Amino acid sequence: MRFVDLIVKKRNGEPLSTEEIRFWIKGYVDGAIPDYQVSALLMAIVFQGMDACETADLTMAMMHSGDVLDLSCISGIKVDKHSTGGVGDKTSLALGPMVAACGARLAKMSGRGLGHTGGTLDKLESIRGFNCYLSREQFIQQVNDIGLAIVGQTGNLVPADKKLYALRDVTGTVDSMPLIASSIMSKKLASGSDAMVLDVKYGSGAFMKTPEQAIALGQEMMNIGTALGRRVCVMITDMDEPLGYAIGNALEVKEAIATLKGEGPKDFTQLCMEAGSRLLMMAGIASDLKDARARLSTAVESGTALNKLREMVSAQGGDVSQIDDPDLLPQAACVTGLTAKTSGYIAHMEAVRLGTLAMQIGAGREKQDDTIRPGTGIVLAAKVGDYVQEGQLLAQIYHDTPLTGQWIRDFYASYRITPEAARRNPLIYKILGEETYTQT
Amino acid sequence: MRFVDLIVKKRNGEPLSTEEIRFWIKGYVDGAIPDYQVSALLMAIVFQGMDACETADLTMAMMHSGDVLDLSCISGIKVDKHSTGGVGDKTSLALGPMVAACGARLAKMSGRGLGHTGGTLDKLESIRGFNCYLSREQFIQQVNDIGLAIVGQTGNLVPADKKLYALRDVTGTVDSMPLIASSIMSKKLASGSDAMVLDVKYGSGAFMKTPEQAIALGQEMMNIGTALGRRVCVMITDMDEPLGYAIGNALEVKEAIATLKGEGPKDFTQLCMEAGSRLLMMAGIASDLKDARARLSTAVESGTALNKLREMVSAQGGDVSQIDDPDLLPQAACVTGLTAKTSGYIAHMEAVRLGTLAMQIGAGREKQDDTIRPGTGIVLAAKVGDYVQEGQLLAQIYHDTPLTGQWIRDFYASYRITPEAARRNPLIYKILGEETYTQT
Repeated sequence: MRFVDLIVKKRNGEPLSTEEIRFWIKGYVDGAIPDYQVSALLMAIVFQGMDACETADLTMAMMHSGDVLDLSCISGIKVDKHSTGGVGDKTSLALGPMVAACGARLAKMSGRGLGHTGGTLDKLESIRGFNCYLSREQFIQQVNDIGLAIVGQTGNLVPADKKLYALRDVTGTVDSMPLIASSIMSKKLASGSDAMVLDVKYGSGAFMKTPEQAIALGQEMMNIGTALGRRVCVMITDMDEPLGYAIGNALEVKEAIATLKGEGPKDFTQLCMEAGSRLLMMAGIASDLKDARARLSTAVESGTALNKLREMVSAQGGDVSQIDDPDLLPQAACVTGLTAKTSGYIAHMEAVRLGTLAMQIGAGREKQDDTIRPGTGIVLAAKVGDYVQEGQLLAQIYHDTPLTGQWIRDFYASYRITPEAARRNPLIYKILGEETYTQT
Repeated sequence: MRFVDLIVKKRNGEPLSTEEIRFWIKGYVDGAIPDYQVSALLMAIVFQGMDACETADLTMAMMHSGDVLDLSCISGIKVDKHSTGGVGDKTSLALGPMVAACGARLAKMSGRGLGHTGGTLDKLESIRGFNCYLSREQFIQQVNDIGLAIVGQTGNLVPADKKLYALRDVTGTVDSMPLIASSIMSKKLASGSDAMVLDVKYGSGAFMKTPEQAIALGQEMMNIGTALGRRVCVMITDMDEPLGYAIGNALEVKEAIATLKGEGPKDFTQLCMEAGSRLLMMAGIASDLKDARARLSTAVESGTALNKLREMVSAQGGDVSQIDDPDLLPQAACVTGLTAKTSGYIAHMEAVRLGTLAMQIGAGREKQDDTIRPGTGIVLAAKVGDYVQEGQLLAQIYHDTPLTGQWIRDFYASYRITPEAARRNPLIYKILGEETYTQT
């Protein structure tokens, strides 16, 4: 088999066979197929796409390019949750403890933030002593013991995706549904769970700009999951404005703790309830949506959900006193309130710009080796649809270094305030794959 | 400027600016831009194309990536001729002496054969002692002295194209009109001539399979030439069957010598006359087609055309006794006649297969470092449209090693013989750009 023939085949719009896709991924990981050939194939895929079979084959080939986690020694159905990333998305921090408190087993591998999006590991590491790097045995043991662990990647998972993603990033070939879907799904499948909720975000702060694109990606991922025998539920959710109020690591941990106490933002609480109820049903714990929601509400009201976070932090070496008293979490040196310059309704907040602004003051990384300042970030005081008076607080900025004039100008430029009343997008646009758990 | 932004721009169908194209070519030749990014851009160009401006910019950037030959010290209009390559194409060997005998100045750089197509340098080197490698000064001196030189590349011409072509070859990105056109034209323009005839071939033995594709490529090259102030005439010619009868190096030299004596194959003679008359008009030597044809005929009939070949061979160190007596040219060890198995009309001869068969017995190279056996090859006895009786000679095979059964089967498989009369394609399908010389 000559790789150039595969490139020409795809360029001409013909599907690649299972063998050809395996040859590609194996050869690329081995170093037998050079970057310059793979990038040409990737660009051909951007234009010609891949069919459902090819996408499933690519996912399988990537998944098996490294270790595949065997969670079979954890009893029961293992659930997982993935978000395509956004601004202020601290869902795992609250959702994980909520479903684990209801008896589900969530064995989750998370990542770090880059650019305008945050990362769950960075958020957890704002808790003093929290250890994201467990051995595979420790990881499995912890899920068996307390039903919950959130860790960085253990073992050599999906090396093909690491290599391919790095190449796609510098060759203009990120934008391709089958490549995005297989990249996400190969990692999810290699980490061994049986059922998962995929939160596919759309809007100014998300990779997918429209609900239609998000649905297409969600459908693509559902197809892969189904083809490979997993239960997958896809939620299409809004990321046109940030999720909740807090953007920044310790600030988001605080908001997650508040949510576990039943005092969280409405939108964020709703997302945790809706995603959590699907996970409970897929895990066979709840019989229907009503039952699932009731169990989650009880977990929050009774304090068992918050206690589950405390258990996880404790098991992973973190300082639980910071969970008990969130004021002990890292604090930024300064807090500056920025107020509305005109009265009116907030018609739009550019989530990607707010995420980038938070990154610029230390809440995120521009480059992979940048250091995070855990206390910094933005806490919004109002969101889309709210009416603000001139001089009323728009947001509190938590910063360690002075805010520049440019930063402040950019902050205001990310808002659009109009005299006419403005409507918020519904948080949940659509849910796909309900049949995967209503049938169980 | 970040190269990945250029890739994304082209992927999205936007044209690249002059500065962006210069940045690309300079960075690629310098090694600042890696192969894997360039191959992604090339694939995006395969899908999105390039407009006339971009193609001219790319040609200029490539042309100036290395030396540009200055032929200004050669008096008069310098003409050149280029063919997109085919089987049995020995045009330069006869056309060059014909037009030089009429007073034109042809300073030609040629290449070597690869795969099913032969190379002018290989053909000339079947003449004992012939030296293709002149210094730039010797090259210019010889054209000034006798009006004709055919050499291998002198100096570091168009290094960008060498690097790009090698990459295109292994990344499935050869098939792109603007990339093909700019590759050819950058080399032609860097070699310094003022006016040129481009012979764009189509058919089973050519890169372009249909006349429409050939016209599109020819038009693209004319546009570049015109944009850069050169006179360009494009001939769209048939390469569905081999040109003339001889395929193989010394065999083709013999056929060229016969043609210079007025005893050549009809199709090949016609091509030399038609291309030659355009060159004479572009050089300002002939006033119209009739005049040009008469001059060329006189050069052949008077022997001055053959004598010009003799002069060139002598000037480049070759053994002129082989021109005077072509039987002294290298001879293959064996000659095998292959005869028709059925009676009928030759409806089709697959030129690419015949070229490959000639290559397999030593007339060409499969890999760049293969050695050529100069005496080997195929001399056809009949061509498309001819009637052959069962047992009548189809071709003489000149070989040094025994012909295998598979080789002979492949030979017969390249013919289609039918009971119904078959028509030959006209040799010249169309000529573009007549206005570039009829106006002078």
